[in-house]
Amino acid sequence: MPDMGRPPPVIGFLTDFGLDGAAATCRAVMLSICPDAHVVDIAHTVPKYAIADGGFIFAAALPYFPVGHHVAVVDPGVGTERRPVALRTERGDILVGPDNGLLLPAADALGGATGARALSDRAWWLPVASSTFHGRDIFSPVAAHLATGDATFEGIGEPIDPADLVRLPEPTVRVTNGSLQTEAIYVDTFGNVRLAGDRDALVAAVGAAGGDVSVRIGGGEPVPARFAATFGEVAVGETLVYIDSSGHPALAENQGNLAARTSARRGDGVVIERT
Amino acid sequence: MPDMGRPPPVIGFLTDFGLDGAAATCRAVMLSICPDAHVVDIAHTVPKYAIADGGFIFAAALPYFPVGHHVAVVDPGVGTERRPVALRTERGDILVGPDNGLLLPAADALGGATGARALSDRAWWLPVASSTFHGRDIFSPVAAHLATGDATFEGIGEPIDPADLVRLPEPTVRVTNGSLQTEAIYVDTFGNVRLAGDRDALVAAVGAAGGDVSVRIGGGEPVPARFAATFGEVAVGETLVYIDSSGHPALAENQGNLAARTSARRGDGVVIERT
Amino acid sequence: MPDMGRPPPVIGFLTDFGLDGAAATCRAVMLSICPDAHVVDIAHTVPKYAIADGGFIFAAALPYFPVGHHVAVVDPGVGTERRPVALRTERGDILVGPDNGLLLPAADALGGATGARALSDRAWWLPVASSTFHGRDIFSPVAAHLATGDATFEGIGEPIDPADLVRLPEPTVRVTNGSLQTEAIYVDTFGNVRLAGDRDALVAAVGAAGGDVSVRIGGGEPVPARFAATFGEVAVGETLVYIDSSGHPALAENQGNLAARTSARRGDGVVIERT
Repeated sequence: MPDMGRPPPVIGFLTDFGLDGAAATCRAVMLSICPDAHVVDIAHTVPKYAIADGGFIFAAALPYFPVGHHVAVVDPGVGTERRPVALRTERGDILVGPDNGLLLPAADALGGATGARALSDRAWWLPVASSTFHGRDIFSPVAAHLATGDATFEGIGEPIDPADLVRLPEPTVRVTNGSLQTEAIYVDTFGNVRLAGDRDALVAAVGAAGGDVSVRIGGGEPVPARFAATFGEVAVGETLVYIDSSGHPALAENQGNLAARTSARRGDGVVIERT
Repeated sequence: MPDMGRPPPVIGFLTDFGLDGAAATCRAVMLSICPDAHVVDIAHTVPKYAIADGGFIFAAALPYFPVGHHVAVVDPGVGTERRPVALRTERGDILVGPDNGLLLPAADALGGATGARALSDRAWWLPVASSTFHGRDIFSPVAAHLATGDATFEGIGEPIDPADLVRLPEPTVRVTNGSLQTEAIYVDTFGNVRLAGDRDALVAAVGAAGGDVSVRIGGGEPVPARFAATFGEVAVGETLVYIDSSGHPALAENQGNLAARTSARRGDGVVIERT
Repeated sequence: MPDMGRPPPVIGFLTDFGLDGAAATCRAVMLSICPDAHVVDIAHTVPKYAIADGGFIFAAALPYFPVGHHVAVVDPGVGTERRPVALRTERGDILVGPDNGLLLPAADALGGATGARALSDRAWWLPVASSTFHGRDIFSPVAAHLATGDATFEGIGEPIDPADLVRLPEPTVRVTNGSLQTEAIYVDTFGNVRLAGDRDALVAAVGAAGGDVSVRIGGGEPVPARFAATFGEVAVGETLVYIDSSGHPALAENQGNLAARTSARRGDGVVIERT
């Protein structure tokens, strides 16, 4: 039974299920088990099977959430031998989803994974579990039982060494004199291109904000740009390099869509040079 | 007045209103009447006027919801003589929406409609009801008054015989030796093609999971496929027949989009044969 | 600390952030500060930087919301000298967002802006405020502190004269004998074209509902139409003029998409004439 004296538990929820009812079905399962949960839809339009995109969004959002029991499902291997897991983070959250690399960026953003469990105890699943919809049948009910206090982290299944969890390959970031070689790790809905690395790497390569730079995306032509603190520092339609709201270097066109203009995509190599 | 001692009422909510504020306006109306309601958006991007698509999604989702007062609005006949109605289900839910076939598949999935009412008592509508937005002005307030306990099912309007409700035509499903003739009843956001019928019909036609089959969609060429228990049983890019998470036969491409590849659409005839 | 004795505060929330996590991050910030808030997503797919579209949707939705603390962010000038502001409405709501014209249509719909403040007191912002994501770092936390009762309207920053707020240009509406000259102010997801003006202007121009009219959109050819009370009064595929659910004149095709057929867009001049 939920303990209605505690504050309402918060469950962040991300999938690639789209907007046609599957995510809402999972939410209903969670509410059936934990009626006072605040389930917060982080995104359900993650491109299908795009584990890296889902991982980026989950990691960018969760640091702004209350400590909670958060669920992510981008799961091309559903029904195969990939493990359903839960991770405990240094901050105190529990992250629930498939062991395919999706959860670890968020765990890193919350201080790292301090423990992991396989979701092997079927007592916390729905009574009948399909082989194609683990979001509804395994991940959501386990998270809700944890949120409501029925289940404990130790009680949901066998321990796993966090070092054994599947991790996506890290993008390469290299700073050489006057140049940052990095990689597009996410393209947002504004067409802004988020890059691997951080402010220190960008400043080490091209100096402090305010300077002129050139940007090459993929095999494209160099584009003149400015390392700016705000979009408004460059004219409408011009290109800027900035530190995004998650602390990554990023590329944008002021009031335009840089990714549409340059065909930039996740995985593209990017070089930023002082000019 | 809402009785805050009861658990928060759950209202599942589905429309074809899109994402530009109309569904949120309905949610606000419901919250104004029933401040502690958990309104769960099932889908608002149902293709415009697609009653059958809305009915499929509503019916697939609601069995996973707590018993509640659920609203669906896909309503090409808004403002005409089609009736606004509420159905009571065997499970105890009340479903609110237009009498155009949208609600009955969900009622069937919840044990059947055991009663129906026309929403004829204007006391439960908004004070000023437009002729073009019954979702906001009639369906949402009636559901919220029922959820909060102000209104009773018997008090919302004239009784209707459930047998007189508008029902969409049933798709044809035929099993002959070695073949299932059925129909695409829904294409989901993964491009998976959901079919009329159930596991028994598929097994009667082509035998147990594990066998090779051929699939014909619409007037297309036969495609080799496998009757598989999980997506991972076939290689990436190959076609499978499986039992979906609602118990229907379905067609998919492992990690691909079968509907995009084959141009499959709702209403297409589908033949699955043993090979 | 939130006062859990009061009814849960309602926060309507509109942005052009899209569906990939930014709006959910703002919601999480609000929940962190005001754990019992009902945050209602009005729309997050407002076309990027389209202040007028966002303003229309916000103004159409809020009159159906409980009095609350509502946030709107369509903010091409983020990080520049445009002011973050809050307006108090005659009805008692507080509207939070950028001072760029986005909030005033909703304030007008709620009785007018009776006071305004710049969000100059950083005590109510997140501790570290980025220059590119004021939705997360300024607007959401200020609204949540107001909603939970920590902050007062007077305490969030310097007073502003509401007459000094940025206001978008008003569309021109002219009634001459037998003709309404107006402008498309919004195209909804059904393809219906909402027009500046009201029922009185339309009736003054072309007489009461029921008559035949012709409609010209932009430089296009005149289209025969009917001034109808409901969609069902014209045949499927025919054009109607009607009073929309917000009280504006509007154009539609019964069960079709008029904007797609006519390429109508916001800002197009529209002439409706008696025939």
